[in-house]
Amino acid sequence: MSTETPAPARAAKVLVSADDLRALVAGVFRARGTGDAEAAAVADALVWANLRGIDSHGVSRVPRYLELFDKGESVAGAVPTVERPRAAIAIVDAHAAPGPVAMNRAADEAVAGARDCGVGWATVRGTVHTGAIGYYTSRVADAGMAAIGVVAGVPNMAYAGARGAAVATSPLSVAVPAGRHELVLLDMATAVMALGRIAQLKAAGQELPAGAALTADSEPTTDPALAKIPAPVGGAKGAGMSLVFELLASGLAANPIVPGYHAGTKEGRRHRQNAFILAVDVSAFLPLGEFRSAVDETVDAIKSLPPADETREVLVPGERGRRSAAERAAAGIPLGPKVWRELTEIATDLDVAVPVPVG
Amino acid sequence: MSTETPAPARAAKVLVSADDLRALVAGVFRARGTGDAEAAAVADALVWANLRGIDSHGVSRVPRYLELFDKGESVAGAVPTVERPRAAIAIVDAHAAPGPVAMNRAADEAVAGARDCGVGWATVRGTVHTGAIGYYTSRVADAGMAAIGVVAGVPNMAYAGARGAAVATSPLSVAVPAGRHELVLLDMATAVMALGRIAQLKAAGQELPAGAALTADSEPTTDPALAKIPAPVGGAKGAGMSLVFELLASGLAANPIVPGYHAGTKEGRRHRQNAFILAVDVSAFLPLGEFRSAVDETVDAIKSLPPADETREVLVPGERGRRSAAERAAAGIPLGPKVWRELTEIATDLDVAVPVPVG
Repeated sequence: MSTETPAPARAAKVLVSADDLRALVAGVFRARGTGDAEAAAVADALVWANLRGIDSHGVSRVPRYLELFDKGESVAGAVPTVERPRAAIAIVDAHAAPGPVAMNRAADEAVAGARDCGVGWATVRGTVHTGAIGYYTSRVADAGMAAIGVVAGVPNMAYAGARGAAVATSPLSVAVPAGRHELVLLDMATAVMALGRIAQLKAAGQELPAGAALTADSEPTTDPALAKIPAPVGGAKGAGMSLVFELLASGLAANPIVPGYHAGTKEGRRHRQNAFILAVDVSAFLPLGEFRSAVDETVDAIKSLPPADETREVLVPGERGRRSAAERAAAGIPLGPKVWRELTEIATDLDVAVPVPVG
Repeated sequence: MSTETPAPARAAKVLVSADDLRALVAGVFRARGTGDAEAAAVADALVWANLRGIDSHGVSRVPRYLELFDKGESVAGAVPTVERPRAAIAIVDAHAAPGPVAMNRAADEAVAGARDCGVGWATVRGTVHTGAIGYYTSRVADAGMAAIGVVAGVPNMAYAGARGAAVATSPLSVAVPAGRHELVLLDMATAVMALGRIAQLKAAGQELPAGAALTADSEPTTDPALAKIPAPVGGAKGAGMSLVFELLASGLAANPIVPGYHAGTKEGRRHRQNAFILAVDVSAFLPLGEFRSAVDETVDAIKSLPPADETREVLVPGERGRRSAAERAAAGIPLGPKVWRELTEIATDLDVAVPVPVG
């Protein structure tokens, strides 16, 4: 009865090994003036996001970083400076360095403060796109500490009860080291669904879940083509979290973003981000091994709960990303044809070697 | 055509002045063995919640506190002890003192650490019902500092993908001092809707919004009579926040709650809470006045946004509660007849004077 029409051909993804992808991205940043170690840091942060399946925060962002360099909104070779006004706090001025350069420094400073005082807080002033913030909190957890991280950026999300983009999808990440288990890693936007995920569903022609996004006129929509403004998770809760994250991250950095954005000036609309990372030295509270065991027992208790759907496993934060990373480390990272074309064109223009895909 | 039947008579609320209510509650706690200052602290924290319209965390909890005393799960006269293993961190062992006694001490210790080191973290081990956590973060903000507070408790909320009560509705509060404006105060459960609010809708015979709660069998319901388990806000996001809050609050207190609860032992199901409060000394980052101005400008920007519904005002976190407090400070605090009857019976039994309602 039915006349089968083949689905429109979807251009195949390219598989690139993580090492090759890191070398490619690091080469591009080096060629644009970023120091060797800093270029490697940017590449590692972006490829980490791809490995974990957060492709919206991965190497697809390279063209955007270069555009920010071109516009002078980011400075390829900028070296962050650090003040430490009190023993447990550091202010990392990014001087518009790429996000990972500033954020790695902040993670290191937070850890240093925590070793000294039990907790350490590092504020980041004036960086650009930080990538997946879970990368930095994970680094802190790898040092045997717990971490909380927040990024504030230019408004792109709705605020409960208001029209238009009002606050940012500012993420919250918490990382906690475990023992037998891998670290527990929460990394969430304050939106129901991040813009990158909306773009992915749009590309796939899939409908959005109800409540995830608004049109340009702030009407609810499930049509990815009309979805322009992500909705805050839990309405006033997500909106409120985003607002206080802006006050903590940007306010303490003496670099507020929200008022300037709504003033509508060119400077106010310029892309920039502030952040903070808090490190907590677990071993100052109790023996680290005891803490790791308690985390393991808590994870075991959650994973032993009866699943809501018997075919599915109960997961703890970070688990899905870790499995993706294991798979992609083995099989290669799948890149869409557009991303791969852009990266290879950029590399070729800059005389950076283009690796051979593994699939 | 219609035969009008009168609505069932709803017993009228009693209006009691905040001062009278504080004196009543403090008298009850003193009579049960709590020290003068500590009894006043408990009364102030509970009445603060009533003033702000969070009646589920107010004086309606007094009978429950006394029940915990009777069972030995809380100790009326317990005096928290404090260790300060490093300069910026304190561990407040509540020794089962009532929540406000332990939490006030933690707020003070967090502020002391922040004065010294820029940030101060206080962990609370083994208290009971803390009331509205915004009370404590507000105290920190009143000292010109920013605050983050989290409480972890016995599981009562669903976890994404699992059946039954799995984690707690653990709240997050962030308080930030402003200038012309009052402080910005976020105080939110990690549930779509806290249990107390579900109980209020149940009492009022109102339907719940979709997605707010599950039945005892973990099926979604909008019937308040069947609603037993609050759903986490944003599914995996709220569930994940609650889980990492447990790891931070209870894990660092060396007093994990989730594993024991799911082991199902009597001890594991005993009511207890852990918490942390972080204070950030704003003046270590930038002049406090500059920060306050930036907060004011941010609040102005948000409140100037076009409202989604033209008849409504755009609110920032804490504003609704502050308005309620102003009204209730003037007109008296409305208490349901059951709450008032319980309080007066308890007071009479303990020879504590019962104030005359103002309305």
